[in-house]
Amino acid sequence: MQEIKYNQYSKEALEGLTRGAFLNVSHEGQDNTMTIGWGSLGYIWKKPIIMVMVRYSRHTYQMLDEAGEFTVSIPFGDEFKKELVFCGSQSGRDMNKFENCNITTVRAHSVNAPLIDGCDLHYECKVVYKQAMEPGILCGDLDDKFYKNKDFHVLYYGEIVGTYAK
Amino acid sequence: MQEIKYNQYSKEALEGLTRGAFLNVSHEGQDNTMTIGWGSLGYIWKKPIIMVMVRYSRHTYQMLDEAGEFTVSIPFGDEFKKELVFCGSQSGRDMNKFENCNITTVRAHSVNAPLIDGCDLHYECKVVYKQAMEPGILCGDLDDKFYKNKDFHVLYYGEIVGTYAK
Repeated sequence: MQEIKYNQYSKEALEGLTRGAFLNVSHEGQDNTMTIGWGSLGYIWKKPIIMVMVRYSRHTYQMLDEAGEFTVSIPFGDEFKKELVFCGSQSGRDMNKFENCNITTVRAHSVNAPLIDGCDLHYECKVVYKQAMEPGILCGDLDDKFYKNKDFHVLYYGEIVGTYAK
Repeated sequence: MQEIKYNQYSKEALEGLTRGAFLNVSHEGQDNTMTIGWGSLGYIWKKPIIMVMVRYSRHTYQMLDEAGEFTVSIPFGDEFKKELVFCGSQSGRDMNKFENCNITTVRAHSVNAPLIDGCDLHYECKVVYKQAMEPGILCGDLDDKFYKNKDFHVLYYGEIVGTYAK
């Protein structure tokens, strides 16, 4: 694993994200991961920032909210397709997803959240800003489409403290 | 100008942004531009999204808020250095920045905001979500550093309806 600049593979990161990436957290000795397909990469407050979104209903929500740290592990190809489907449809409340999927984790360099072994790109992040989506501000059709049941996302803006490529 | 995929030059876009880019708006027949150095590029709500930030105090704020559309024009090199400094330090309330800087604009393809002629990359965007920053949620040192006078940013999430390269 090699440390690189945060935007080195931004094109591949954005493309990988839309096909599915792992959002990893660690809290009180428990590791967990969930599948994400949305997010953004940017430069804000003079820092490289990745923004990830977690719905209130998710097990990850409380873990991330309390830990204040996360990692994102992105495969560029399809080698984690099955695992991403599984981790996006099951909850860490009920099981250890890593064991169930035979996913191997490795320790991150600067945060407690783990990295998913074998992914092409990893961001290690510390939350510097978070904000829950405000009901009713999203343009109408998107609000109906994604938040009909009012299970809004919380937006976590994480300072990228390390970017690593396979 | 050639239409490309939104993330084609994301690496260059993020690097260009940190050196300065033009955020362009048009409202009630008046065009304006301001310099931005922060923002993000992502995929959210199943759409390519660029997020830009405008402080309440800016002339652009009301224009953008009412128009609901904007463009971002990014130079990859230093050829607009002087113009970016000027447009970041003067207000469109007091002058026509384009005339003062000898900046030429061209019409965009799908929004009313103009594009800055000669820039390497252009995003045409329609606002789908906006949210004012909440005082006190940003981690302490950043809050002190950037918002001591409480002139917070409003975050505008624009669906990228067209990306064009020179």
